[in-house]
Amino acid sequence: MKIYDFKGFPNPARVRIALAEKGMTDRVEFVSVNVPAGEHKLPAFVAKNPSAAVPVLELDDGTTIAECTAITEYIDNIDGTPTLTGVTAKERAVIQMMQRRAEAELMDAVGTYFHHATPGLGAKIELYQNREWGEKSRDRAIAGMRYFDRVLGTQAYLAGENFSMADITAFVGLGFADFAKIAIPADLPHLHAWRARIAARPGVMAS
Amino acid sequence: MKIYDFKGFPNPARVRIALAEKGMTDRVEFVSVNVPAGEHKLPAFVAKNPSAAVPVLELDDGTTIAECTAITEYIDNIDGTPTLTGVTAKERAVIQMMQRRAEAELMDAVGTYFHHATPGLGAKIELYQNREWGEKSRDRAIAGMRYFDRVLGTQAYLAGENFSMADITAFVGLGFADFAKIAIPADLPHLHAWRARIAARPGVMAS
Repeated sequence: MKIYDFKGFPNPARVRIALAEKGMTDRVEFVSVNVPAGEHKLPAFVAKNPSAAVPVLELDDGTTIAECTAITEYIDNIDGTPTLTGVTAKERAVIQMMQRRAEAELMDAVGTYFHHATPGLGAKIELYQNREWGEKSRDRAIAGMRYFDRVLGTQAYLAGENFSMADITAFVGLGFADFAKIAIPADLPHLHAWRARIAARPGVMAS
Repeated sequence: MKIYDFKGFPNPARVRIALAEKGMTDRVEFVSVNVPAGEHKLPAFVAKNPSAAVPVLELDDGTTIAECTAITEYIDNIDGTPTLTGVTAKERAVIQMMQRRAEAELMDAVGTYFHHATPGLGAKIELYQNREWGEKSRDRAIAGMRYFDRVLGTQAYLAGENFSMADITAFVGLGFADFAKIAIPADLPHLHAWRARIAARPGVMAS
């Protein structure tokens, strides 16, 4: 299988960590899409993902899977022993809920700030910006950090006592916040301790 | 189990259809949350869902599950025979991808238009509006309709040849578009034919 992405970018990092956690990085051929040059908006790539975003997983039968949650579902279930997306109905539901929150309240909120309230990827890529909405989204991201700190005050990981894809998403979201120069409040001890633990995982360090 | 929701609203409709499709409606006690009166923003409800949104599933052990995808995962997997979220890794991935697209490109885009570029739920609920972003989101919703029409020109349902939760989300999204007075373009024959087929499903009619 192939992954079309751009190394170092936030959403690609989510899938690279998932692959490393599963020990599956070697099974993938990575194809670089030059996002800063706008290659993700060209017809050849839009045919693979109409949303014009990386990463995209391409299976050997030609099926293309976009959206990080979907790609992670594939990676996690293809070996028959899911470790990132849950096994029981309740585990699956809690992980999906926290994954959605990690996206909406952190990852995507930071992304909207970056693309709308900063120069983002530059004028050739950012064809429409709404600064006020971008700044609202930064406030949302900070509120999200405060929420995740409260969650991590009562349990080891975002979806309970086990690491899951929601932790990957929020961890990458914090890295994106650093890059976008959104200050992570210092008074969130549980979030900072969790972040240090995630950063030290072999799968995260290897990705 | 209990579902906290407000009958007739879009996201509650997604879960009610999923329950009806699974034949599980009778297993749920519905608790009405008066969203037009702002009850979803009161502490008692925010304790169940910090995102202050309906629906929320509450399990008998007190666990609360928010986010429609997560609730649908639970409903679909609790009886051991998933019919809405897929079985194989590939099915699961494609359905998750199309579910995310049905949310981002239709359901949530319509919602952002409704809450930002129309009076929405009224001045007491809509404390911040960004009209320009709302109108951009309407354009995104219409582009989403065009994309789904193209998909449905090549396959029976959004995620392939089988009905899935992605169809529920997009179907409810079109109803929300009607309610928000976003005109669904007439020149989308596959989308309109699919909509009529979904509307005639026993589970959809019963919900």
